[in-house]
Amino acid sequence: MHSREQYLDLIHDAIKALELPKNPAGLYRPITYALDCGGKRLRPTLALAAAEACGLAPELAINQALAVEIFHNFTLLHDDVMDKADMRRGRPTVHVKWDENTAILSGDAMLTLSTIILAENAGETLPKLLAMFNKTAMEVYEGQQFDMDFESREDVTTDEYMRMISLKTSVLLGGACAIGALRAGANEERVKALYDFGHMLGLAFQLRDDWLDTFGDTAIFGKSIGGDILNAKKTWLLINALEGDKTGDLRRWLAEDGDPEGRIAAVTAIYRRLGLDKACLRLIDSYINRAIDAVKTADLPAEAREFFIELAEQSRERSN
Amino acid sequence: MHSREQYLDLIHDAIKALELPKNPAGLYRPITYALDCGGKRLRPTLALAAAEACGLAPELAINQALAVEIFHNFTLLHDDVMDKADMRRGRPTVHVKWDENTAILSGDAMLTLSTIILAENAGETLPKLLAMFNKTAMEVYEGQQFDMDFESREDVTTDEYMRMISLKTSVLLGGACAIGALRAGANEERVKALYDFGHMLGLAFQLRDDWLDTFGDTAIFGKSIGGDILNAKKTWLLINALEGDKTGDLRRWLAEDGDPEGRIAAVTAIYRRLGLDKACLRLIDSYINRAIDAVKTADLPAEAREFFIELAEQSRERSN
Repeated sequence: MHSREQYLDLIHDAIKALELPKNPAGLYRPITYALDCGGKRLRPTLALAAAEACGLAPELAINQALAVEIFHNFTLLHDDVMDKADMRRGRPTVHVKWDENTAILSGDAMLTLSTIILAENAGETLPKLLAMFNKTAMEVYEGQQFDMDFESREDVTTDEYMRMISLKTSVLLGGACAIGALRAGANEERVKALYDFGHMLGLAFQLRDDWLDTFGDTAIFGKSIGGDILNAKKTWLLINALEGDKTGDLRRWLAEDGDPEGRIAAVTAIYRRLGLDKACLRLIDSYINRAIDAVKTADLPAEAREFFIELAEQSRERSN
Repeated sequence: MHSREQYLDLIHDAIKALELPKNPAGLYRPITYALDCGGKRLRPTLALAAAEACGLAPELAINQALAVEIFHNFTLLHDDVMDKADMRRGRPTVHVKWDENTAILSGDAMLTLSTIILAENAGETLPKLLAMFNKTAMEVYEGQQFDMDFESREDVTTDEYMRMISLKTSVLLGGACAIGALRAGANEERVKALYDFGHMLGLAFQLRDDWLDTFGDTAIFGKSIGGDILNAKKTWLLINALEGDKTGDLRRWLAEDGDPEGRIAAVTAIYRRLGLDKACLRLIDSYINRAIDAVKTADLPAEAREFFIELAEQSRERSN
């Protein structure tokens, strides 16, 4: 198996080598900007590692890995328009740097571009790759729709929340693994094991993101803490806290207008009082364990199993 | 060959039989709404006719025809957001009936849905179908980008305009024909002849649309006349008139604020004085002739050639 750093090099080289047309610049420049965003490149890494775990040189799965990364960045581009988010990874979002129309149209082009690249050198694996890719894409849209629906609902349950993040975030990590495996011509059993690994890892990842947004360290997390609280975003923490809010204390704090710092501190204290900080970490651990279980007994080379297990273990304590 | 009415029946039955999930309703209902829009269904008709012309029962190309129609309606959905258009075919647009986020996300889902359906029963023709479909999609986005770029430019030439409508509108009519032919396993020569037919027909179609927006009959055209003039939209008519506007008369009228009726009448009179109404009709005729030439000598059954020639002849005098 290659190392994560070697996969990253492959991915960055492939992004650099992407030859987009120069014109119309208004369509193609935002795509280059969006792809040049840094980020962990977790999804294409999973695709390459899954391909190699199933016996294919990762260089031969680079198009499929890139397709997943372009798709992911397309969803970020459109989500940022829908969520009116101004910044992403320390830079202005596309609809701020250009405008909304640019973000919509360049996003559309990224979606089509991802399908074009998915098909490159896919050979006989194309039908299965495309089916997995498209199924995953539809689920991601469903997740985003549920997430938006939750904004105006007060009765969201944790089950509904887990289903939402499963769709919006986790299936794409599962899909990335499955796409790498399918590109390698893997059998159903291997594809399923790797899909499950990515899916469970994705759930842990999103819960950890939610946890870090409240309990993280700004300097390490790279963005300010408490944004979810100020937006009263229906995260696992808030949904559970609302269920435990018998006195109405939490609802009063959420409805406050002034002093954001005070509101973040008060809500965070409520979470701690209810033991939700630790309960969330336990839940994350359980999904990490389920991810590890999915590959531990799978019919994969020992080296590959170790790669995935190490990647999952690192996610347990992730702080950015 | 089937008749146009028979193709329409096939298309409408296929749209009715589309089984979309019920939930989340906010994602899927707008898709049903957008597809239930009436319209001429010209693109899927071309796909079915091209498939039959190349020896395939049109029923076997219905998925590919539907894919093209869903793609087309996705572009309308996003274009309407970008152009801030409130009405489409006599009904509120999706972003008016729901909201912008719904139009963006449901549009994304339609694009993925179109690729899913394109692949259904495609068998060995999938790689070529997908390549043609995706290439055409990228061109459509480029056309939309050029169209938006033109809004802030005063020096657009007729060559640039023709290239823009070729990308934004015509390649999809060409692509629809090619996709039908490719689905039937046609050879390159037939695919090219049918693509050229659709492409040239598409240029004529868009020019006719521009012409009708100024010189059409509201009652028959189905929308009010003069919208392009009021928006100073860079159409073939306006670009040519601006080149002939030595006195600055036209620019003064376009810059006027008051009395829309007066402005429409004055600009229309200028177009007529410059002979542009007739010149535009001659240009439309020349593209219809080129469309007919593309199929007249092609290696297709006589009945198929006649179908396409009749369809082109009907477009010559189209008034809605």
